[in-house]
Amino acid sequence: MTVDYPARRARLAELLPAHEVSALLVTSPVNVRYLTGLASSNAAVLVRADGSALLATDNRYIDMARTLDVPSVEAPDVAGRLAEPGVGIEAASMSVATFRGLAEGLVPLGPVVETLRMVKDEGELELLRTACEITDQAFADISRKIVPGMTERDLARLLDNRMTELGADKPAFDTIVAAGENGAIPHHAPTGRELRAGDLVTMDFGARYHGYHADMTRTVCLGPPAAWQREVYDLVAAAQRAGRHALAPGAGADAVDAAARSVIEDAGYGARFRHGLGHGVGLEIHEEPFLGPSRTGRLEDRVPITVEPGVYLPGRGGVRIEDTLVTREGGPELFTKTTKELLVL
Amino acid sequence: MTVDYPARRARLAELLPAHEVSALLVTSPVNVRYLTGLASSNAAVLVRADGSALLATDNRYIDMARTLDVPSVEAPDVAGRLAEPGVGIEAASMSVATFRGLAEGLVPLGPVVETLRMVKDEGELELLRTACEITDQAFADISRKIVPGMTERDLARLLDNRMTELGADKPAFDTIVAAGENGAIPHHAPTGRELRAGDLVTMDFGARYHGYHADMTRTVCLGPPAAWQREVYDLVAAAQRAGRHALAPGAGADAVDAAARSVIEDAGYGARFRHGLGHGVGLEIHEEPFLGPSRTGRLEDRVPITVEPGVYLPGRGGVRIEDTLVTREGGPELFTKTTKELLVL
Repeated sequence: MTVDYPARRARLAELLPAHEVSALLVTSPVNVRYLTGLASSNAAVLVRADGSALLATDNRYIDMARTLDVPSVEAPDVAGRLAEPGVGIEAASMSVATFRGLAEGLVPLGPVVETLRMVKDEGELELLRTACEITDQAFADISRKIVPGMTERDLARLLDNRMTELGADKPAFDTIVAAGENGAIPHHAPTGRELRAGDLVTMDFGARYHGYHADMTRTVCLGPPAAWQREVYDLVAAAQRAGRHALAPGAGADAVDAAARSVIEDAGYGARFRHGLGHGVGLEIHEEPFLGPSRTGRLEDRVPITVEPGVYLPGRGGVRIEDTLVTREGGPELFTKTTKELLVL
Repeated sequence: MTVDYPARRARLAELLPAHEVSALLVTSPVNVRYLTGLASSNAAVLVRADGSALLATDNRYIDMARTLDVPSVEAPDVAGRLAEPGVGIEAASMSVATFRGLAEGLVPLGPVVETLRMVKDEGELELLRTACEITDQAFADISRKIVPGMTERDLARLLDNRMTELGADKPAFDTIVAAGENGAIPHHAPTGRELRAGDLVTMDFGARYHGYHADMTRTVCLGPPAAWQREVYDLVAAAQRAGRHALAPGAGADAVDAAARSVIEDAGYGARFRHGLGHGVGLEIHEEPFLGPSRTGRLEDRVPITVEPGVYLPGRGGVRIEDTLVTREGGPELFTKTTKELLVL
């Protein structure tokens, strides 16, 4: 994929007058990558209102930086090298210590580059589509190997290894595998607990591909489901469907959440669904926009996002179903293709 | 391992009067984990000068928090819930945006908990020792499988998978595999470049075990080494030995660096060794202390640290040799046991 980085910087430059700054000092590593192509742990880029830019990084990355279509300078103190009065800084990612070491007259700003990153171009969507394909394929390959007696950690490792074998950079985040009662913990870290017949098993995982993050969750049942397991599964699936159908350019972030949440609330499980419905994905696993009861803003076109309702019953277990989709005029495009029927293994 | 978290908080409390604060608001996730045992992405703990403490986290982690030996409170805005005038904050990890949203009268401080974390207790050393054993074993198992035609990415994946099979939480950082000319890039990310006869191949990798990070590098040669490869290898090995021998409680961070660097400089390769000699390891892969020409401070007893000189020849390749060791009275304890003889595969 050839990325037009100068065009990205030009779009950023257009936003600067509204923030009353002459330039933005971009220090968030993922934002630097988005604007220049440099993936590093220590770089900054100053983007001026006229669209010109200067990249600073240290001696570990300067050789790479010099191959890019932006002027660059080697400096260990990347922010200090580029800071000047009247320039905006990224208040959400810059530390207090760095800020205090810089020149006076800098202007702390909220998300600016994050807003640009929300709407993806087709090249980005192609990378994310591939990330989701790898994730689907890993699930298809590994779900055949799920048997009682293996541990949550065993299963997480199988998923992780299969994703990298299939071409992932690495797992997009720490894979969650939660069996039986552990399924009631939304962010459970895999343990040595063995999978047993009768367990619901939730797997939340994804591939990172060329920096883009897929995110998918499925809950399966080891052996025939009990009535309560089937009931909760069908409820979450119905809520997930309602959430997907509400995804559209122009829809409110709170309204999409409500479309799914009301299904669960109407069934009396509202108190068992305590997190937001979903989040944007891209160069970060969690990025703008976020779907939740108190989230403001409206979705735009070409925004990749997750829809992931869950119901969690302490001591018993839980169900979560999550796809990655992208908003489109005419209806969302589903990147996660795995069936949402309850798989009985 | 049973950790005495109240004792850790008591040691922190003793440091607070010297910083002229009544309490420290700890927001760095790894510092929160060190002081309470809670591993999360959103938590804060207020530790007061009398040793008492209050932990805040959101609804994802509050159930876990309630199992710990510290009072806890659920709050989405963890720092805001605990901030009060006269309290110190961690300036290196708190963002400008968070800081600006908090109460007036907070006192930005430099590293405080990081200083405590530098010296490990025997329980921590045992976890790190295991992390290094897993790393050694993975290298032993995978080095037999290194053959021309496999790619840098293939080899990185084999190492990563083997470490998790052997019990690692996950890789301690993004594994580096650099073949041939790519070995001249200290932080090279693995690509599809195939390994070829005659290549030097550098592998920099490690296991994370119960949160503790191992770090190891070996450079091997595919087939008999050329004269320049042998020369550079022997030079780096000699520098690495000198660095290890200089590691001792009381030694200056710059003096240890100089012990190794002077070997490389005396051979005329000083300009080809551009990074610091090593860094502390523990709950983070890079933590205090750092070894380098302009680093101040002296080593203490029971400080795990890496020694990792390298020589990098642009267009040709490079050699780096790295062990994880721990300072001890009477001489460092070597955690990385793999041979430092040049392996010819």
